Amino acid sequence: MASTRKLSSPSDYAELLSRYDTWLFDCDGVVWSGDDAIAGASQAIDFLRASGKRVIFVTNNAARSRKLLKKKFDRLRIAASEDEIVSSAFAAAIYLKEVLQFPTDRKVFVMGMEGIEAELDAVNIKRCGGTQPGDNKFLPANDYSSLVSEEAMDSSVGAVVCGFDMNLNYGKLCKAFRYLTRDGAQGPVLAGETGGGCHFMLTNDDKVVPALGELWPGSGSLATPLIASTKRDPIIIGKPHAPMLDTVKKLYNIDEERSIFVGDNLHTDILFARDGNIDSLLVLTGVTKEEDCQAEGIWPSFIIESISNMIAAETGQKRIAAMCSVSTIHASL
Amino acid sequence: MASTRKLSSPSDYAELLSRYDTWLFDCDGVVWSGDDAIAGASQAIDFLRASGKRVIFVTNNAARSRKLLKKKFDRLRIAASEDEIVSSAFAAAIYLKEVLQFPTDRKVFVMGMEGIEAELDAVNIKRCGGTQPGDNKFLPANDYSSLVSEEAMDSSVGAVVCGFDMNLNYGKLCKAFRYLTRDGAQGPVLAGETGGGCHFMLTNDDKVVPALGELWPGSGSLATPLIASTKRDPIIIGKPHAPMLDTVKKLYNIDEERSIFVGDNLHTDILFARDGNIDSLLVLTGVTKEEDCQAEGIWPSFIIESISNMIAAETGQKRIAAMCSVSTIHASL
Repeated sequence: MASTRKLSSPSDYAELLSRYDTWLFDCDGVVWSGDDAIAGASQAIDFLRASGKRVIFVTNNAARSRKLLKKKFDRLRIAASEDEIVSSAFAAAIYLKEVLQFPTDRKVFVMGMEGIEAELDAVNIKRCGGTQPGDNKFLPANDYSSLVSEEAMDSSVGAVVCGFDMNLNYGKLCKAFRYLTRDGAQGPVLAGETGGGCHFMLTNDDKVVPALGELWPGSGSLATPLIASTKRDPIIIGKPHAPMLDTVKKLYNIDEERSIFVGDNLHTDILFARDGNIDSLLVLTGVTKEEDCQAEGIWPSFIIESISNMIAAETGQKRIAAMCSVSTIHASL
Repeated sequence: MASTRKLSSPSDYAELLSRYDTWLFDCDGVVWSGDDAIAGASQAIDFLRASGKRVIFVTNNAARSRKLLKKKFDRLRIAASEDEIVSSAFAAAIYLKEVLQFPTDRKVFVMGMEGIEAELDAVNIKRCGGTQPGDNKFLPANDYSSLVSEEAMDSSVGAVVCGFDMNLNYGKLCKAFRYLTRDGAQGPVLAGETGGGCHFMLTNDDKVVPALGELWPGSGSLATPLIASTKRDPIIIGKPHAPMLDTVKKLYNIDEERSIFVGDNLHTDILFARDGNIDSLLVLTGVTKEEDCQAEGIWPSFIIESISNMIAAETGQKRIAAMCSVSTIHASL
């Protein structure tokens, strides 16, 4: 991988463009910031498409299905098809199906929301927990009786998949705990055998999550009670962990030499790409400032201010870039 | 401290009895096991009282107030007054009041149950959160709007106290997160000043808790989302942490030389006592087998089978001890 290059002249950008066929994009801080599009991002994505490039969006968001995530792209006027969006919930479902060869007669207990459920359904993996009404209520104080009954537990559960869950509650934690600690839970998960093996997966390990201009406890924090009580380490799917990029590579038949990952976070994007042998492009529209590379000792292949620079430089319309950088394009939720 | 002694003859027991004036007891695994009294425990406690000894019960249970814990003692026919029970919730309230000199115009945000609330009320510390209806509901999926409003937050909060909470929910976690990360939250907590400093306390760090013959995620697990998301370390009150024994020593004016701690757990009881310069007596009616001492390299001052041995040996009525050891005395909840 080349040492970091900062692009300036139109020919630098032209060279960058010609070098990669597949452009993988992180979302928050790159194409949008919270609920607003990054200025010029829409045009930059259109420009890449017009230049014959393949565009894929890679997000750790596991609360929403790809179908709902697509609606956000639509609202912000960023062209994306459902097939071009890889969420950590989708990658978790693919990982269960393809890598773990999860048996069709076993179920996943979901400690999460609609995003995980929809993606499991899409690959025909059975599930329980999640948004089901019986698992979204408070238990009477100090009363475990409803949790020890045989009926409360499903013996066919062969995986616990945790993600962001605004309806996290003690009953769900207890059920997940019991699935993960029952006899043989750390063993193999076999078709036709109930009980026994139980995988432990976490869609993404983000300890905090941004929303409405604030930070909030994220999936990586919400799963810690299970990690602490079971003493088990989950398989973590989302960036910067390898299963996410492995899934993307497999699904889209990625040529590592001709692909680049565009992100705003040195750890979850730039290191993630480097560990996966993919070149990286750091944009400064998110959490990282240029001087952070030196401070953290993490260097991307390239740095640009914003993905909007792509189009401005290429077309020579620097005026547009300057205008766009003044403010982000507001879009209502 | 003497090396471990195993007691056998009546004179051994007589010597043990004469050596200590104050007998501190762990509860679960020592005087009761779940919802059943340990055989002979009631008589052993009565015997100690009849011998002029002071008896104090020290429990990490923070879900119930001392008043409710006393009811459990009553049900199991183990004589105890409320004043002889120290729970981690009670110790947390005392610690706030005495050690941290918590200002009377500041509030505690409770992520816990009735036990913490009752003990804060008993020492006139104001509180919010906890069992209040507004903090015990689920939020609409992906909607943080109710949490960012100024009205949702109480600017007078100067401490977050976490304990066991069967009504744990994302809204409580978010509020606690915001109190613990607001500007100046790690600074001093001052009277007459709202905002700023915010203490972070955990009643006890037990990762699992026993109930109905099973283990379940405990307070120490339920607080991990806050530790992970805020990157703050809480002050941990309960055994084996020092604040619990410091509180007991101060409250009861303990003479270290003339006091002994009786427990069933090498880490939370025996090490706890040793670190607090108190002699210890290991009973084998709970989680520890005699050979575990060698394996763990943790040695109590004394080992006996059960506290019922105290009375059997002293009175020579070994027959009673033998009978009692056959089964535990069942008492309905």
